[in-house]
Formats: sequence, structure tokens, C-alpha cells
Amino acid sequence: MRIVSGVQPSGNLHLGNYLGAIRQFVALQDHSEGECSFFVADLHAMTTIHDGKALRSLTLRVATDYLALGLDPDRAVIYRQSDVPQVTELAWMLSTVTPMGLLQRGHAYKDKIARGITPTHGLFAYPVLMAADVLIVRADRVPVGRDQKQHIEMTRDIAAAFNNTHGEEILRLPEAVILPKASVVPGIDGRKMSKSYGNAIELFAPESEIRRSVMSIVTDSAPRSRSKKLSPPFS
Amino acid sequence: MRIVSGVQPSGNLHLGNYLGAIRQFVALQDHSEGECSFFVADLHAMTTIHDGKALRSLTLRVATDYLALGLDPDRAVIYRQSDVPQVTELAWMLSTVTPMGLLQRGHAYKDKIARGITPTHGLFAYPVLMAADVLIVRADRVPVGRDQKQHIEMTRDIAAAFNNTHGEEILRLPEAVILPKASVVPGIDGRKMSKSYGNAIELFAPESEIRRSVMSIVTDSAPRSRSKKLSPPFS
Repeated sequence: MRIVSGVQPSGNLHLGNYLGAIRQFVALQDHSEGECSFFVADLHAMTTIHDGKALRSLTLRVATDYLALGLDPDRAVIYRQSDVPQVTELAWMLSTVTPMGLLQRGHAYKDKIARGITPTHGLFAYPVLMAADVLIVRADRVPVGRDQKQHIEMTRDIAAAFNNTHGEEILRLPEAVILPKASVVPGIDGRKMSKSYGNAIELFAPESEIRRSVMSIVTDSAPRSRSKKLSPPFS
Repeated sequence: MRIVSGVQPSGNLHLGNYLGAIRQFVALQDHSEGECSFFVADLHAMTTIHDGKALRSLTLRVATDYLALGLDPDRAVIYRQSDVPQVTELAWMLSTVTPMGLLQRGHAYKDKIARGITPTHGLFAYPVLMAADVLIVRADRVPVGRDQKQHIEMTRDIAAAFNNTHGEEILRLPEAVILPKASVVPGIDGRKMSKSYGNAIELFAPESEIRRSVMSIVTDSAPRSRSKKLSPPFS
């Protein structure tokens, strides 16, 4: 049983990353009988971060946060995506069997365009690189948030197309592992916690900053005359 | 002055490849004062050839044909595209700054779709990989056929977008070198000679096969009662 997943270093890690991803990585590393690989997805982050110096710094920061949160290089393979050139090599090979229609149906790309982000080829081709991330290690399971479920389905489709074209079971079709709890962590504005929405609570920020973020959470919109029910963001 | 170009091993080399490309490569190698790099574009060929064994064989064949036609490893760098992983690494980085609109305007992609070829992501992303081929060696000049002119313009646009994003003159903008003679070599049916059109005259085929190809050239469609004017395919 092989397990792989990664986090984009598009900012400092926040509670959503921990509850939605890294907490699960640590549990899998500690309790799974398989080989676990966890990477820092700096090539993916290049789709949004165009400052090389900042990206290098964030990449190192995510790697050290991995260690601080309990990932252990003795029990899991921890690596930087860009240190494995085979990932982009495989991504190209996968491209040659990936139907354009598959990528055009991608929710994440359409969402980004809808949010006014400039449509680059990197955003469009993102699912192909993600497929390469998973397939290069012949992963059986990929622990991801619910919003990444479609990408794992696309990975399976791409792997099946590759195997179908090349006539052998060369690539292993992975399955998404989506933990029902904390599958989507709301941010301080109620939307999914995300660096790009600016609604995140950073894990290792100074106390004053965390306090300010937490206190700004909108808990109830009922008028003052009615008693308030607190809605904690996490159950 | 750096010069780079390549040929796809999508079949055995034909007269069009020699007159339209390799003859120029040899002249540049012999008479240019610059560094010449010529590669066998096997990663590009994966967009059309899905048989790994056949592709390996064709790749070796193009390399030996390069040597037979006069390319000299002592005077030019001759390499297989897939032996340089930096090419696909750079292709991904270029993707992150390449507007989707630029690729959507690509003639070659539209032509292939119009000819009924299944639209894969590899065909769509082809100009990005080609840009990486050229930019990775910091080429000044790229000798290509006229039909490749748009791809070099796209390479310049992508390089400019990269430099603009990263704030430095990191990538060198190349220029296409299009020789006016033999810029398009017609095949035995009058269309551009191309392996994919099935109208090519192979360079190193058995004599009987070359004879059959040449004799099948349609030279004039005038009725028998009128004198024929021979239209030689090459001037």
C-alpha cells in the first residue's frame, strides 16, 4: 500500500491545511502499514506565486512545518516536488494521452477563471501535473480534501488512458481517501479556508495575529434582540 | 550565436526533412560561427506515436540519419530530447506564464483537429514544449520551415512573459531563420511533404520504393490531347 499527498507552498500553513490534510498525513504515517510519501508542491505553487525568492522561502517553511507537525523522515519520504524531474517528464507523457475535454471539464480551473484569475496554461494543465505526482510513486491511496476529489478521478482517467494506449498495466490507478470529518474547514468568513481567499488562520503565526483572526470570525448574524447561538467553525 | 533545431522521429526521414531542415542544419554547422545544437524530438513524437518500441527504433534511426547526412558530433551538440529532463521542467515553468489564449490561437493545433486527429492535451501544449526546447539552450536562431514560424513567435511571446513576470532578462528571445528556397517541399500529392500525409519520399528507402514514390507524382492534370508541362517538385 502506497500513499502520497502534498501541500502547495503558496503561503504559510493554516488550520485548514492541518485539519484537512497534514493531521491525516501524520495519522497515516503512524498507523498505516504502507509506504507514505509527502511532498511540498512548489511546481504547482508557481501557478500563483511568481516571486522565486518568496517561493523558495515558503517551500522551506512548509517543509519545516511538516516536521513540526509530526511528519517523520524516518517513517515517510518527504521531498520537494521540483527535486524530482521525473514528475514533469511523466506529466508530458501523460499529456499525450489526456483528452482536452477531460481538462476542460475541470471544476478547479473553471472556479479560478470565475474568480477573475488570468487563465494560464499552468492552471489548465494543473490536473496533469497532479496526476504525475500521484502516478510517479505508484500510489494506491491519496488522502485529499473533498475539493480535490475530481482531480483524483481525473488522475484515474489519465492513468487508464495511458495504460489503454500502451497496452499494459504500467500505471497504478489510485483511490482518493477523503476523511468525512474536517473535509472542508471553513475560514473566518465561512468559505473554505484558503490562503487565496485571505480567510485563513495561520498555524505558526504570532499569538496576537491568531487572536485577531479568531476574534474576527462571524459567529451569528441574528439581531441583538435574539439570543445568539455560537457556531464554532470546527466540530 | 547559438542555434538549435530538431526533427520529430515520427517516421523515417524523407526528402522534405532533408531539403526543408537537415540540409540547413549541416550548412549552419559547417559555416556558422556559433554553437549548434540539433536534437531528436522524441517527446514531441509521443503526441502521435504510441508504440514505445517503434518510437525508440525511429529515434535511433533519425540519430543515425543525422550522422549519415553530415551532422558531426565534433562540431554540433546532437542529443535526444528525452535525455534532457530540464526540457520538461522548463516547459512546466513556462506553462505558468503562458496565457491560454496564446495556445488557443495556434494554427498547428487547429489544423490537426480539422484533420480529425483526437485533441489531446499533448497536441495543445506542443508549443510550450517547443518553447522549452529553444529557450533551454538560450538559442539566438532557430532554423525552421515556414509552417513553424508561428511556433517561434509563440516561443518569443512565452519567453517575454516569463522575463516580464520574473523581472529579469533570464530567457533569450530567439529568432526564426526561414530559408526562402525549399521552405515548403511538396509531397507526391502536391501538399506539403509530411509523414502524416503519407505523401513522403523516404531518404534511405530501397531503390524500388523510392522509384515507385517518384513515379506516382502527379505532374500535370491537362487532358492527353494537350502537350504536358512537367512540374518538377523541387526547383
